[in-house]
Amino acid sequence: MDLILHNGEFIREEDLVISKEDRGYQFGDGIYEVIRVYDGNLFTAKEHIDRFYDSADKIKIVIPYTKDVFHKMIYDFVEVNNIETGQVYVQITRGAAERQHQFPTQATPVITGNTKSVERPVASLNSGVTAKFIEDIRWLRCDIKSLNLLGNVLAKQEAYEEGFFEAILHRGETVTEGCSSNMYGIKNGILYTHPANNLILNGITRRVILELCEELEIPVEERPFTKTEALEMDEFIMSSTTTEVMPVVAIGDHKIGHGVPGELTRKLQTAFEARIQVAVKS
Amino acid sequence: MDLILHNGEFIREEDLVISKEDRGYQFGDGIYEVIRVYDGNLFTAKEHIDRFYDSADKIKIVIPYTKDVFHKMIYDFVEVNNIETGQVYVQITRGAAERQHQFPTQATPVITGNTKSVERPVASLNSGVTAKFIEDIRWLRCDIKSLNLLGNVLAKQEAYEEGFFEAILHRGETVTEGCSSNMYGIKNGILYTHPANNLILNGITRRVILELCEELEIPVEERPFTKTEALEMDEFIMSSTTTEVMPVVAIGDHKIGHGVPGELTRKLQTAFEARIQVAVKS
Repeated sequence: MDLILHNGEFIREEDLVISKEDRGYQFGDGIYEVIRVYDGNLFTAKEHIDRFYDSADKIKIVIPYTKDVFHKMIYDFVEVNNIETGQVYVQITRGAAERQHQFPTQATPVITGNTKSVERPVASLNSGVTAKFIEDIRWLRCDIKSLNLLGNVLAKQEAYEEGFFEAILHRGETVTEGCSSNMYGIKNGILYTHPANNLILNGITRRVILELCEELEIPVEERPFTKTEALEMDEFIMSSTTTEVMPVVAIGDHKIGHGVPGELTRKLQTAFEARIQVAVKS
Repeated sequence: MDLILHNGEFIREEDLVISKEDRGYQFGDGIYEVIRVYDGNLFTAKEHIDRFYDSADKIKIVIPYTKDVFHKMIYDFVEVNNIETGQVYVQITRGAAERQHQFPTQATPVITGNTKSVERPVASLNSGVTAKFIEDIRWLRCDIKSLNLLGNVLAKQEAYEEGFFEAILHRGETVTEGCSSNMYGIKNGILYTHPANNLILNGITRRVILELCEELEIPVEERPFTKTEALEMDEFIMSSTTTEVMPVVAIGDHKIGHGVPGELTRKLQTAFEARIQVAVKS
């Protein structure tokens, strides 16, 4: 049985005690990360760990470890559970205290995490997936990877119930991102994606994709695009830590381009896989 | 030691087990209520319980009890802990399941709760409190009393750090509500408050106040008002289950009216206390 992470220790799940007054449980007062593991190696771990600290900092939770110690902890965690291809989930909450909205004067942050074996979604990466427009009703600090995910959950459920893989969230006419992914359109050779402001989470895979565009000399415009523009894109992509460079071949019942993954999408996928290989060998 | 509520049973806190994969802990995927207890009697319990079921329904969590059974459970809970003047907190989450955004196919909702002795805030009710404008950055379903409270938490903390009792949240120029309260202004004998739509939680105390206005023949306009209008009100009030009809005598460093609780505020407080007395005797 896999061990779980609790405040720096690897313990059996049945030994974990979470207080019902943990502010994670009553306010969603915490943040999280999901880090991919390929062939036993953490992928873009530094970037995820930096963002973990950034998110915590934005809501004034102090992580009681240096980044190096935390990185080592995540590394050891993957090793102790012998994860080959999979992921690490880790979250930190402000800790347990008598319930009141303002921060408690005394509370010790609580870190929990688990590992999981997950194969790469090869079939979907090959064929692409479909998505559905859903109004983005979330708060205005989507740049924080917080545990307040009910807006994401409700949109994902709506998409899922109707047979779609993901929701394409939009505020009014403007596409923002997915429930757990970033969104990109490609038109006439240019890749468009929402700028990394307070309305989206700046995905680590998003950052890799923008780097790959530079390497591949695909011009990028980080600017919001509309639902109408989305439908008229030649290619459409969603990305996340677990779904990588995922082609979106239809939005609702509307085919994107020819309804199959496009040429630049394939180039980006190939370049992304090369990055994985480099990480695995390093 | 007080017992806690867990799925219909009253248990010792140390016997409670919460999974780290409880969706309340990873997504804030749940809803809650706080019910006031005066002299051992639940106050406006039916209204709170109705709203508990409404909130659950809005996010498609099914509460596994009839309202009558649940009401009896809350009643017994207060009795078993021998609460005289205090409150009951109760929440329900979608339950524990392997982490994914969409609803799990198999999960049992988890109800937890506690009681607490809390005196009425007599001194503050007498002198009034101060509040501060803070931008409302929360999601667009504030009508759901959900566990996604990070926006409320951050605003309350900002107000609290600067010595204010509450934040007056506003979207652009429009005042919505407080972090854990509703807001009202009184001008030329008319009481104004934001309509009960998706931007505010329709407080139970708010509903009582609107009833009392009718009894006292105080005209009410449920319409949004601006920050500028707020500053020019003759009287200002915030309300919640624990703070009742609370005078707001200053917003930032700007006095409201004469900087003391006004005449209609006092009338509403007196009428509210009479309601408490009726409930206690019933």
